[in-house]
Amino acid sequence: MQALPSLSLWNRWWQTVCAKMPFSDWLLVGTLLALGGSWNVVRADGGSERNCSAIPPYLPSTVVNTTLRLQALREAMSSVNVSAYIIPGTDAHLSEYIAPRDARMAFMTGFTGSAGTAVVTLNKAVLWTDSRYWVQAERQMDCNWELEKDVSISSIADWLIREVSDTDNIGFDPFLFSIQTYESYSYNLVPAKLMLKSIPDNLVDSVWIDRPPIPPDNLIRLPDRVVERTWQMKVEHIRTQMRNNPYKPTAVLLSALDETAWLFNLRGSDVPYNPFFYSYTLLTLNEIWLFVHKDRVTEDLKLYLQSTCFHLAHCVKLLEYEQVRVMLKNYMTTYGVKVWIGTEYTNYALYELITPEEKLLTSAYSPVLTTKAVKDETEQRILRDAHVRDAVAVIQLLMWLEKVVPEGKETEMTAAYYVNECRSKQKDSRGPSFETISASGPNAALAHYSPSNATSRKLTVDEMYLVDSGGQYLDGTTDITRTVHWGIPTDMQKEAFTRVLMGNIEISRTIFPSGTKGVNMEMLGRRALWEVGLNYGHGTGHGVGNYFGVHEWPVGFQGNNIPFREGMFTSIEPGYYKENDFGIRIEDVVVIVPAHTKYGHNYLTFETVSLVPYDRKLIDTSLMSPQQLQWLDNYYLTIRELMGAELDRQGLTEEKKWMLKHTVPFQSATASAAVSSLSLTLTALATALLHILL
Amino acid sequence: MQALPSLSLWNRWWQTVCAKMPFSDWLLVGTLLALGGSWNVVRADGGSERNCSAIPPYLPSTVVNTTLRLQALREAMSSVNVSAYIIPGTDAHLSEYIAPRDARMAFMTGFTGSAGTAVVTLNKAVLWTDSRYWVQAERQMDCNWELEKDVSISSIADWLIREVSDTDNIGFDPFLFSIQTYESYSYNLVPAKLMLKSIPDNLVDSVWIDRPPIPPDNLIRLPDRVVERTWQMKVEHIRTQMRNNPYKPTAVLLSALDETAWLFNLRGSDVPYNPFFYSYTLLTLNEIWLFVHKDRVTEDLKLYLQSTCFHLAHCVKLLEYEQVRVMLKNYMTTYGVKVWIGTEYTNYALYELITPEEKLLTSAYSPVLTTKAVKDETEQRILRDAHVRDAVAVIQLLMWLEKVVPEGKETEMTAAYYVNECRSKQKDSRGPSFETISASGPNAALAHYSPSNATSRKLTVDEMYLVDSGGQYLDGTTDITRTVHWGIPTDMQKEAFTRVLMGNIEISRTIFPSGTKGVNMEMLGRRALWEVGLNYGHGTGHGVGNYFGVHEWPVGFQGNNIPFREGMFTSIEPGYYKENDFGIRIEDVVVIVPAHTKYGHNYLTFETVSLVPYDRKLIDTSLMSPQQLQWLDNYYLTIRELMGAELDRQGLTEEKKWMLKHTVPFQSATASAAVSSLSLTLTALATALLHILL
Repeated sequence: MQALPSLSLWNRWWQTVCAKMPFSDWLLVGTLLALGGSWNVVRADGGSERNCSAIPPYLPSTVVNTTLRLQALREAMSSVNVSAYIIPGTDAHLSEYIAPRDARMAFMTGFTGSAGTAVVTLNKAVLWTDSRYWVQAERQMDCNWELEKDVSISSIADWLIREVSDTDNIGFDPFLFSIQTYESYSYNLVPAKLMLKSIPDNLVDSVWIDRPPIPPDNLIRLPDRVVERTWQMKVEHIRTQMRNNPYKPTAVLLSALDETAWLFNLRGSDVPYNPFFYSYTLLTLNEIWLFVHKDRVTEDLKLYLQSTCFHLAHCVKLLEYEQVRVMLKNYMTTYGVKVWIGTEYTNYALYELITPEEKLLTSAYSPVLTTKAVKDETEQRILRDAHVRDAVAVIQLLMWLEKVVPEGKETEMTAAYYVNECRSKQKDSRGPSFETISASGPNAALAHYSPSNATSRKLTVDEMYLVDSGGQYLDGTTDITRTVHWGIPTDMQKEAFTRVLMGNIEISRTIFPSGTKGVNMEMLGRRALWEVGLNYGHGTGHGVGNYFGVHEWPVGFQGNNIPFREGMFTSIEPGYYKENDFGIRIEDVVVIVPAHTKYGHNYLTFETVSLVPYDRKLIDTSLMSPQQLQWLDNYYLTIRELMGAELDRQGLTEEKKWMLKHTVPFQSATASAAVSSLSLTLTALATALLHILL
Repeated sequence: MQALPSLSLWNRWWQTVCAKMPFSDWLLVGTLLALGGSWNVVRADGGSERNCSAIPPYLPSTVVNTTLRLQALREAMSSVNVSAYIIPGTDAHLSEYIAPRDARMAFMTGFTGSAGTAVVTLNKAVLWTDSRYWVQAERQMDCNWELEKDVSISSIADWLIREVSDTDNIGFDPFLFSIQTYESYSYNLVPAKLMLKSIPDNLVDSVWIDRPPIPPDNLIRLPDRVVERTWQMKVEHIRTQMRNNPYKPTAVLLSALDETAWLFNLRGSDVPYNPFFYSYTLLTLNEIWLFVHKDRVTEDLKLYLQSTCFHLAHCVKLLEYEQVRVMLKNYMTTYGVKVWIGTEYTNYALYELITPEEKLLTSAYSPVLTTKAVKDETEQRILRDAHVRDAVAVIQLLMWLEKVVPEGKETEMTAAYYVNECRSKQKDSRGPSFETISASGPNAALAHYSPSNATSRKLTVDEMYLVDSGGQYLDGTTDITRTVHWGIPTDMQKEAFTRVLMGNIEISRTIFPSGTKGVNMEMLGRRALWEVGLNYGHGTGHGVGNYFGVHEWPVGFQGNNIPFREGMFTSIEPGYYKENDFGIRIEDVVVIVPAHTKYGHNYLTFETVSLVPYDRKLIDTSLMSPQQLQWLDNYYLTIRELMGAELDRQGLTEEKKWMLKHTVPFQSATASAAVSSLSLTLTALATALLHILL
């Protein structure tokens, strides 16, 4: 049973981890739990955690025996002359989700949490992970491993300085280090005369005998009906930005998996829940090199990419994925080149090749990521469409639960299964966009919960229930959270829910100048909670897009996100979590649209595209302002209009009835009631008067 | 007639200039206008700007002839072998306000604006300044000077790259460069093979024959009644932070003028409006070196500083101000030292001496600045007191203007003079804390306006009037802005004023967790304006303290300010400016106090310590929320209580009457009026009924 980290701890983690990497939101951290396959949660017998000081040491059945793999790794380390080896938890594209074959930290340690760093020396093995994962680590690691709890790079460096003699080398895989990670280690280790040694051939891979292979699946191209800009148009658009850049770059290097996927309108299936394929792109003013596993590119796709033409600005030359370093190195030897990279997603293995300094141009994000952030008209339209179909599935879940929970047979697991099934029946469905968070009672207050057989609670009318789920569709990615209560909520639950809702509404209805940063507005999501001393320990929202990863950075409310512009989509997701009791989160996806103001131009606001009503039982309207109630009623009108039509189209009459019942206006009901009661009184009095007078 | 820069331009300027330097708020930029002494504003004859393409060139009488001084400077440049010389507008302490003897840019160019950079080569002379100053520059510079308009360092560097042959040296005074400034120039020039040459003996000074001398005034120590922590206590407090720092610094180097002033409870008068004296301090774990013009330290002060004791941790060893580089260089040769600096206020001349890298510890702000930001109990009490006395002066001004403006004899100048006079009569007054901004009608919409004989408008009942002024007192510094109208405001003026006020109130009444950053809350000051497409192009507030500069960074609402904690003071100052028409700003100083919440701990809110009512004629209460009106009524109650007692104490009965008239509650008045009107109707009806029935 783990609590959310306190706000300040969380913020610290957030800053150290997320400011540098997209590894940023706990809503998805459950993903990797499946990889180890052997972790079970809280058991009553008390023996679920290892005890390495017992004689003999006690090891629960959930641990992985790492003795042989450690021995093999140490041999590999000796052969390349390093005394320590750093094993991060990310992949070469600094991805938020990683593929099983990239779970090197999990393979070496047994620990399958999504955040951590392992270090192996010739006689020690240590894992650093944050407080959310300490219990899990004690259950999954054998006694070869020590657990350290201060996850800052300076703390790892301090440990290395103590353990390793100076003049010794510390090895790392430069593909798994961001530029920032490298610089942090370097800043801390260099004064102690420890040398970092870049080893591009990963040592864990060299001893990982049954490492999962690259999936054989071919890449697919998006159907024309979801594409407004062909890849040729996108290429030219990026080239125009290169030409207009005062620093005159000659090439853009794309490292994040969604960059290449977006540029060529291609998708793959290498990473669970994410339609990506391993790739890099080097785009110059007159050539295009795509680094990819070529055997997965069909003849059709080769035609589509014009991969066999020569000397043309619109030929995509295919090179093997592994050739990227050789090719980049070669390119750097050309006279007068300058390579533009986004520092947030470029790994150190590529960065270190771009020398001397005058051949490098950096921005936090590549022009592809900033361009991709603003959706074109087609993307906006189809992403709205995907949310209409997605809302059908969520309405089906909520309606079904309302009916069946009192019967006492359903669990978190069956509910998650149900909503996944509902989504799979919608047009263009491509599966869930992340592992469904289906959490009842105290489970909803856990930071990284997805139900398993061991943890799944029965759903009852006595507990609140939180479901955070999303779908991948060919036309868009969705992500929505609703929190409900099927019995009688406490006053505190109603107050907390209402204040979370007020936060969601206050952001949604705000009018702001184009170019405002999300981080400077996100306190509106917290303010109603702050007023009574409540808060939540996670971010307030992330970008969402057209069939990409569910967290589509760099749009959102984080400090390192780019300013809001018309045509961006983001989630808004305030929450409140009461440890060991309940959890609330209300998450909607919104699109940024123009706002028409009395005096100004270029102002924007949000329009909600998630279309599922909130649990009205949990709303205390007396806490809300007239403006908030007005917003809510307008939103419900939109749901009635769009979902009414869609439910009709799908012939779902019961669902439509349910939807209408849950979207009855709040304000006009109250207001008109008040008005009529007043009119009634006055009319009665007047009538009485008249009656008497006449 | 200049407009505020557009928001995006302003933001860009703000980011490039202010993120690096404290030169940050236009409220004070009028200060330097006096230095040149020869600048006059808009003249009807159209000849107020130079025309260098006329034959012969036309020069207005406001320009300064720079031919001889440029010739002398170029000789000096040749003698140290540089082809270009950079002249920034700041001083060696990166101060926001500078002393006349530091106005090197103004001396060389004739241009007295507060923001700019001059560059002189062997055949050209160029000034870079932003759009607020272009007209002024054309009026003050002779034809030796060109004007460039893109003030980014990269643009200056690009110009240098075009003008100077590679292998030539570009000279600069390292005392006038922040670390960030140096790094920006270096980043841009090094790829073009241009070399920056650090010349610690300033070349402008070497040719500035009548450069103002160091003022002869002695330093003063603060009286015991305003001091809770002696300098010895402060020294030990900082040393504790050094010992607790994991990087184990052995010394702290203090460069900003308020750091040394705070540490020793000393003040001076070297900079107009700022009670500072030229100084640096090197504080080690067992020694203290104070660099200062020793002839201004009296025997009493030497005793106070225990400057003649030996080998004791509490002896302040006095060294000449100019010795700081020699002493620091010497200290760096000591084995095992590590010097802690705040990078925002340390000049490059000192920074470049702290090598190798392992002897350097950096944070954005020194521990003195972060400690000083939180006021102790005495400081809080006396700073509140100073605001009570200060409010008397502002009330006197507003009451007087209300009476005399209709007579048509007063001007912006006479009003400014009046409020300065009122302040000077208050206890412990030490003059204004900045040049009073007294601006009527369109003048109030100007970005950097203080009245002069040439610009001063007559005050009339037909225009709005804005007065932004403050005082220095031995116990505190004040800063307050009120905007009033003595006739009939337009609907637009009322709406804009009310929305500015709503912004002020929304920030003031917000409850937030300790550690929240101002920049993440300041949109509350803009939100009511944004709603109708209005905004303002400046920051929302800055720290204020106990007899220091009126902008006491790093507290405030800027991106580079530190998180809010209990005991900090900041201004809150939203505004709205309609070009060529009117300007509104409402500025109060607030202290951060604990907030008692229903469920949480460690929450804070603001308490307003400025105590002057707003112009109720300009308030449209129908736009405001009940919570805002409630806040306003509570604030007025506080004014009545505190100012009532103070005005009584000072025997100011007319002022008290005025204050009471202007602080009548809004809400209870309206509410009870509404209630009585309703009751009246019902009573009338009932009476009528009864009357008829009986």
